[in-house]
This record gives sequence, C-alpha cells and structure tokens, in this order.
Amino acid sequence: MSGNTLRGIFVPTLTPVDDNLAIDVPRWAELSLHLLETGAHGLCPFGTTSEANSFSVEEREDALVQLIEGGIDPAVLMPGTGCCALSDSVRLTAHAVKQGCGGVLFLPPFYYKGVSDEGLYRSVAETIDRVGDDRLRMYLYHIPPQAVIGWSLDLIERLITDFPETVVGIKDSSGDWDNQNGLLTRFPGFGIFTGSELFLRKNLQGGGAGSINAVANLISPFERKLFDNWQSPEADEWQAQINQLRPTYTGMAPIPAIKQLMAHYHNDPAWLRLRPPLVPLSESDAATLLFKVKPLTVMANASW
Amino acid sequence: MSGNTLRGIFVPTLTPVDDNLAIDVPRWAELSLHLLETGAHGLCPFGTTSEANSFSVEEREDALVQLIEGGIDPAVLMPGTGCCALSDSVRLTAHAVKQGCGGVLFLPPFYYKGVSDEGLYRSVAETIDRVGDDRLRMYLYHIPPQAVIGWSLDLIERLITDFPETVVGIKDSSGDWDNQNGLLTRFPGFGIFTGSELFLRKNLQGGGAGSINAVANLISPFERKLFDNWQSPEADEWQAQINQLRPTYTGMAPIPAIKQLMAHYHNDPAWLRLRPPLVPLSESDAATLLFKVKPLTVMANASW
Repeated sequence: MSGNTLRGIFVPTLTPVDDNLAIDVPRWAELSLHLLETGAHGLCPFGTTSEANSFSVEEREDALVQLIEGGIDPAVLMPGTGCCALSDSVRLTAHAVKQGCGGVLFLPPFYYKGVSDEGLYRSVAETIDRVGDDRLRMYLYHIPPQAVIGWSLDLIERLITDFPETVVGIKDSSGDWDNQNGLLTRFPGFGIFTGSELFLRKNLQGGGAGSINAVANLISPFERKLFDNWQSPEADEWQAQINQLRPTYTGMAPIPAIKQLMAHYHNDPAWLRLRPPLVPLSESDAATLLFKVKPLTVMANASW
Repeated sequence: MSGNTLRGIFVPTLTPVDDNLAIDVPRWAELSLHLLETGAHGLCPFGTTSEANSFSVEEREDALVQLIEGGIDPAVLMPGTGCCALSDSVRLTAHAVKQGCGGVLFLPPFYYKGVSDEGLYRSVAETIDRVGDDRLRMYLYHIPPQAVIGWSLDLIERLITDFPETVVGIKDSSGDWDNQNGLLTRFPGFGIFTGSELFLRKNLQGGGAGSINAVANLISPFERKLFDNWQSPEADEWQAQINQLRPTYTGMAPIPAIKQLMAHYHNDPAWLRLRPPLVPLSESDAATLLFKVKPLTVMANASW
C-alpha cells in the first residue's frame, strides 16, 4: 500500500431535502462549505448518515457535480460509491474519479447476505478494472450494523496485496473496538478511519488516519481540536466530552436525531426532512433530545 | 382489497449474463418463453433469484422492454421494482405499469435496518402517489433472510386499508410457516404467494394465490400439476417429491446451485455465470449437487 492516504476529520455530510424530497443542493453546499471552513479536513458526501442509498445514481452524480462547481475542492471529497449493482458501483466510482475526488468510500454490495470473500473480492476487482483509472483511491466501508456483510481481515489483506495503490484505506463503522484494533495492528500505514466518534483518540493513538463519524456534522471543530492535539494532556477530557453526545439519542433513530439537532442549532426546520424509509423523530423524542443535549460543553464548542 | 389478484405458479426467472456480465437477453427471453409454454402462469423477472439488485435500473428497464417486445404478454409479468432509493422504486414501478405488467413485486427499501413501520408505509405511499396510475397492482415482497427488514402484519393491514385496489398481495419468502399462516388467516382474499416450494400445497389449502419460488426455474411443470390438482389424493406425494430438491443443495449458495442445475439440464454452460458478489459453486459442490439430484423423480418430470 502507498501509505499516502487522506487523513483527518472527514464529515459524512447530512443531505437536506426540499419539500418534494429532492436533494436541496444549495443548503447542502452551504453546510459543506461551512464544515470545511470551520475545521473539517474533508467530506464524505453520500455515506450512511447522508441517506446515500435513498437517492438514485443520477441524483448522486448531479449533486456531486454541483457541489464541486459550487467551490468545493474535489481533492478533499470521498463520496460513497459502493452499491448493490456492479454497474452502479462502476458508474459512480468512475464519475467520482473523473471529478477529481481524493477518494471513494466503498460499501460492499449489500443485498445478499452470507456472500463469500471471493464474491466480494470480485466486486472490488471488477470495479477497479472497469473504472480503469490510476487515480482511483478506494476506502472500504465496513458497516455491518446496516450492510450486515462486511470486509474480513483476510479479504482486506488480499485486496491490499493485489491493489496496493488503489485500496488504500477503510472506514470501520462496526462499532467494535476489537475489529478496529485488529485493523490497526495488522495493517500499519493503511488509511484507517474510525466510524465512531467514541474511538477518535484511540484510533489516532493506534496510528489511524482519522475519523468519519455522523456527529461531526455538529461538532467537527471540536473533533478537529482533538485530532490536532491528541497527545495533549487535555485530550482525554475532550474525548470524554465528545462521548457525552451519544447517550442523548440512545434508543432513537440516529440520523433523524442528528438532523433534529442540525435543525435546532442552525435554526432551520428544513433539516428535519428525511427521505423514507427514515422519518423525523417523534415530538417527544425531539424534546428529550434537546433537553439532554443542552448542557453539553461539546455542543457549546461547535460553530453555529 | 379487490380480491382480483394474479394466481398461479410464477417463476422468479434466473438472469443469464454474457461473458462481460451483461444481461444475456436472448437467452433470458428463450427461458422465459419456455417456462410459459411448459406450464408457468407467469414470471417475476428481477426477483432475488434473478440477481435483481446486481443490475442497474437502466439494465432492468431495457431488458424488460426487450422481453415484452420478444413476445411475452406483459399481463403475466410481475417484475421486481422495490429498491433502496425512493426515486429508483418510483421509476421502475412506473415503467413496469407503463409496459402493461400485471403486477410488481415490491421489496422494502433494504439498506437501513430497524426502520419503523411508519417509514416503510411512507415508502409505499410515496411510490403509489408518484406513480399515479390506477393500473398499478403491488405485491409486497417479504424476504427477511436477505432484506432483514420486512412487512409486519399491522403494516400490511394499514396498506390494504389505505390502498385496497393497489396493494393486492404479497410474496412471503420468510421461510416461516407461522408467518405465512398468519397472513392467510388475517387477510383472506389477499394475493398470498408463498416464496417457498415447500409450502406450495399448504398455501393453496389455506386459500393462497400460488407460489413464486426459485426452483420453479427447474420444475415449474411439476409445480403446475400440483397447483392444478392440489385436492387430488396424489398431491401429498407430489409435494413430498418437490421437497426432495432442497436438501440437494443445503449448505451451498442457492442461486449458484440453481444456475448449476440449469446449466446441467439445458446442457448450456453459459448459465454458470453470475454477477459478483455471487460466484459459481466450487467444483466439489457442483459434483455433490449433480450426484444428489440425479435420482429425483421431480427432476425427471421437468421439461427439458
């Protein structure tokens, strides 16, 4: 592997939708610029938090083009491009590379369960072959809580061995520290992003590349401070403050909860909209969330 | 609900691919015509067995148009049209209706797990509203082994109540007789297709509409005989013969196994190809399968 991967706090940006449930590109671009101006190193449009799979390939391509035309440097973008259909994955991946994106976040084809490592290997190999562009930098997206299937350590090793310049990193959203620690131990130099804000400091201590986590939509400046100063004596306290956020929405649907907080802090109810199958929080959940989040220091350090 | 639903043996047709992994439409059309000529009442192109989600929306639309142009009556077609993205589901569903398809088989949006009934309700309601065509006949596709999420009995009742002329049936691929029996008991007159060949007779005894099962690709003439004569004294024996097929590929990936048998009986190795993430059986699994299947009466009654 090249050892030359993206690093930092990458935000899996929320996707605002208009009242027809289409992507609200101006509001999306505004958030994206805001996040980059206030500390994020980069963005992962069309991750899980972004409701990526609730939008068509065309909707994703069109929005990405408009985002870049709106002034975002594509070098700091790592859009999600892995789909169930090989043809869709190839199309979105090729499109992202052509736009100059610094990387792509690659979900395994997630419809069939119990698929073999050989089948997942072929999905990646066919995609790389068909895209046929040396500029492609692929970050595997490991998220068993949603995809159910995932990238095993043996499969990752095979992919790194066969595509050392292309398969350069992973986002681990397993929520399982043992898995992430296994990655850090076995693949030093691989671009290992934690998908959990809870593991931000530990991942950096272990040599990881950074984090791609949902709450970075709200607190990326604070996460950036921890990223830049993870060896500081205060870093443990900062991590503890970050960790206070998760329990405010435990038992609630996380993406609606984060959109609720976005609507609240940006004073913009347009953020409350979601595409089915996701739906906004109930009024009572929303009230509970806002009550619990109010006293948190970490929220006071965010940048709205 | 209308009570006027499709009935019979519907085959979730295998999708052959060429050596570039594109849909091999001539071979697909040939199989489709063959199945209808030898007893199948209808076809469900782009179900799970068809590797539907491994193909793009455009690939699915183009192939469906060519199938109909090739001489298949669209009234006997129930293509799969439910996708993760609302926009894709709307597009494929509207396309199928415009082509004159007798129904559509509707997967829930399957990326997010733990979604609410309200979110799934809105997915269906938005699709029906946006398609905006009274000719739409929707069959819910319940397949928790792959989709993980599914259609609860309470949600089905709400959908039938609100869309009585549109939501007219279900394919139950839970593999759980209790669930299917619950459907038969609670929703008499609803078009209930079993997704398992093992429940074919019991489903008919309970008032179900028929079956959509993978092995019908191989033995639909035999299943048709059972469908037409399920009250016959011999029907128990026929069901027992059908049931012998499943254990021949237990522990193997089912779709590759059925493609292996298709290649064998049609003497056509082109059927062995699959799109990643699915891969052909190992040589040893293939040999085991062909050895076990050889003595089965039910295979001798198939039509090649």
